[in-house]
Amino acid sequence: MRVLIIGGAGMVGQKLANRLAGDASWTGKINELILYDVVSAQKPGAAFAIKTMTGSLADASQSQTLAALKPDLIFHLAAIVSGDAEKNFEKGWDINARGSWYLLEALRAEHEASAGSYVPKLIFTSSIAVFGPPFPDKIGDDFLCAPMTSYGAQKAMTELLVADYSRKGMIEGLSIRLPTICVRPGKANLAASSFFSGIIREPLNGQEAILPVSDSVRHWHASPRSAAGFLAHAANIDLAPLGGRRSLNLPGVSCTVAEQIEALRKIAGEDVVKLIKPAPDETINAIVKNWPRDFDPQLATSLGFEAEKSFEEIIQVYMEDDLPK
Amino acid sequence: MRVLIIGGAGMVGQKLANRLAGDASWTGKINELILYDVVSAQKPGAAFAIKTMTGSLADASQSQTLAALKPDLIFHLAAIVSGDAEKNFEKGWDINARGSWYLLEALRAEHEASAGSYVPKLIFTSSIAVFGPPFPDKIGDDFLCAPMTSYGAQKAMTELLVADYSRKGMIEGLSIRLPTICVRPGKANLAASSFFSGIIREPLNGQEAILPVSDSVRHWHASPRSAAGFLAHAANIDLAPLGGRRSLNLPGVSCTVAEQIEALRKIAGEDVVKLIKPAPDETINAIVKNWPRDFDPQLATSLGFEAEKSFEEIIQVYMEDDLPK
Repeated sequence: MRVLIIGGAGMVGQKLANRLAGDASWTGKINELILYDVVSAQKPGAAFAIKTMTGSLADASQSQTLAALKPDLIFHLAAIVSGDAEKNFEKGWDINARGSWYLLEALRAEHEASAGSYVPKLIFTSSIAVFGPPFPDKIGDDFLCAPMTSYGAQKAMTELLVADYSRKGMIEGLSIRLPTICVRPGKANLAASSFFSGIIREPLNGQEAILPVSDSVRHWHASPRSAAGFLAHAANIDLAPLGGRRSLNLPGVSCTVAEQIEALRKIAGEDVVKLIKPAPDETINAIVKNWPRDFDPQLATSLGFEAEKSFEEIIQVYMEDDLPK
Repeated sequence: MRVLIIGGAGMVGQKLANRLAGDASWTGKINELILYDVVSAQKPGAAFAIKTMTGSLADASQSQTLAALKPDLIFHLAAIVSGDAEKNFEKGWDINARGSWYLLEALRAEHEASAGSYVPKLIFTSSIAVFGPPFPDKIGDDFLCAPMTSYGAQKAMTELLVADYSRKGMIEGLSIRLPTICVRPGKANLAASSFFSGIIREPLNGQEAILPVSDSVRHWHASPRSAAGFLAHAANIDLAPLGGRRSLNLPGVSCTVAEQIEALRKIAGEDVVKLIKPAPDETINAIVKNWPRDFDPQLATSLGFEAEKSFEEIIQVYMEDDLPK
């Protein structure tokens, strides 16, 4: 099979590529993996062929080029992150929403050109940013989308498209709403959630980290390893029983920033925790206060999706997978 | 003030135009009413100027022309109906979704050209077709959108856009999810829900009517008079307290087709009811079985939206307002 990762140079895209390359159940099935992104992606060592392609989904012809390759399985991870999409309204809607629509239209054109025989599986990474307050204590599988960022609205819109193109049999699609991925390796990015990783990652690397919100903020997390696991698992499940419900809340860990810090203290000690410097930022506060705190992801759990059970475990995953040795 | 009704030639558009023309609280405020539609709209007699314009929202330049008129209040009622949008995928997405987005983009351009001073009020007629099964007994204000028709997906997508453009202060928008409007005057249309009106209207006019579904089907209704009332009321309420929740489930009457028929029997007698001829249609059944049955529209009720209290009342409204004398 031919697999396409759109956003293949990004952090989660790379984790996924490495996971596919290192898992015998996938290496036996994949003939070619295409990593598409705005910049050239790194290629993991793998038993199958890997090709990189560069371009932007904001250009409709790019999606036509990708669809013409008739990938059997497409992971759509590409996005302008939340902070950037909130600041740059047009850019966010162009890439996150219009770009995703172009992709679906290009896949529909190939589906129709094949007289209906081409029906790619499409796993779309949505986000818990599709939700907005007021929230119940735990968000259930039937809770409405009322996003409080343009990023969340763009994800929710793409979910609607993925569901309708799936219902019509043009694709076999599923949107998975990732928890905030933590601890992200590497540098801080423009996501408003970037600090959740920063306050763990920087201290573990001997550097100071800014904490822009109150430590009473509660949020929903899973590791990059879980993110790659969610995507690989989503590609393997039978979607037909889901009917019209093609968006899933995924499992994760609900904890406060204070609990995050306490987990870091247990694992790495007081000297490391002292590197976290509170510096309230009203812009980030205003965004984060509208974010979900906890979930009851019954459907995804019943479908076999799994995340970490505690924030300590999330830190340990970072130390095993990504902390520079 | 300048008021624009997009879809002004349609049944609800005409009811709304007549309501505005006949209500002193509106005639004192309106200087000009523009009725825009694909066909030239009828003009009600009114104390204010009325202009008709024709065109299609699928053409982006049309929205630019409309936005350049800087209407203070816009009612966006234009849509390809559900049956048509389900049959003609591209047409539905072009007009119901892309067309609405063009309109919002044109309004944003005027907002920006005015350095932010132009912020039109926009009332968008959404639909209970944004919901899909499985349903709770009564759909609450927090229930997810999981549409089972392209029409419902297109309405839900436009709701997301209306909410995000509102959150950004570019418009002051509200989406109202109309119950199935019944009894519609005039001819049957391509909406899959058309028979709900047909089984009342045709017999009252001495004609046979086809009933394509089981009489145990339960659904959610309000009259055309209520629809015009919802729209006029929506334009008058302060939207700021709604925050990011810019889509409202409206009040209506929940009843089965058997209860509809019983109401008709009470009002018009057995001979009229005998004109209803059952003729099951699997296509219509397949659509209607995925439709909502009942609601608990707390927010809209608290905001003063009102519908009929019984299906008998809905029939009486038809007889008062629309039954040819």
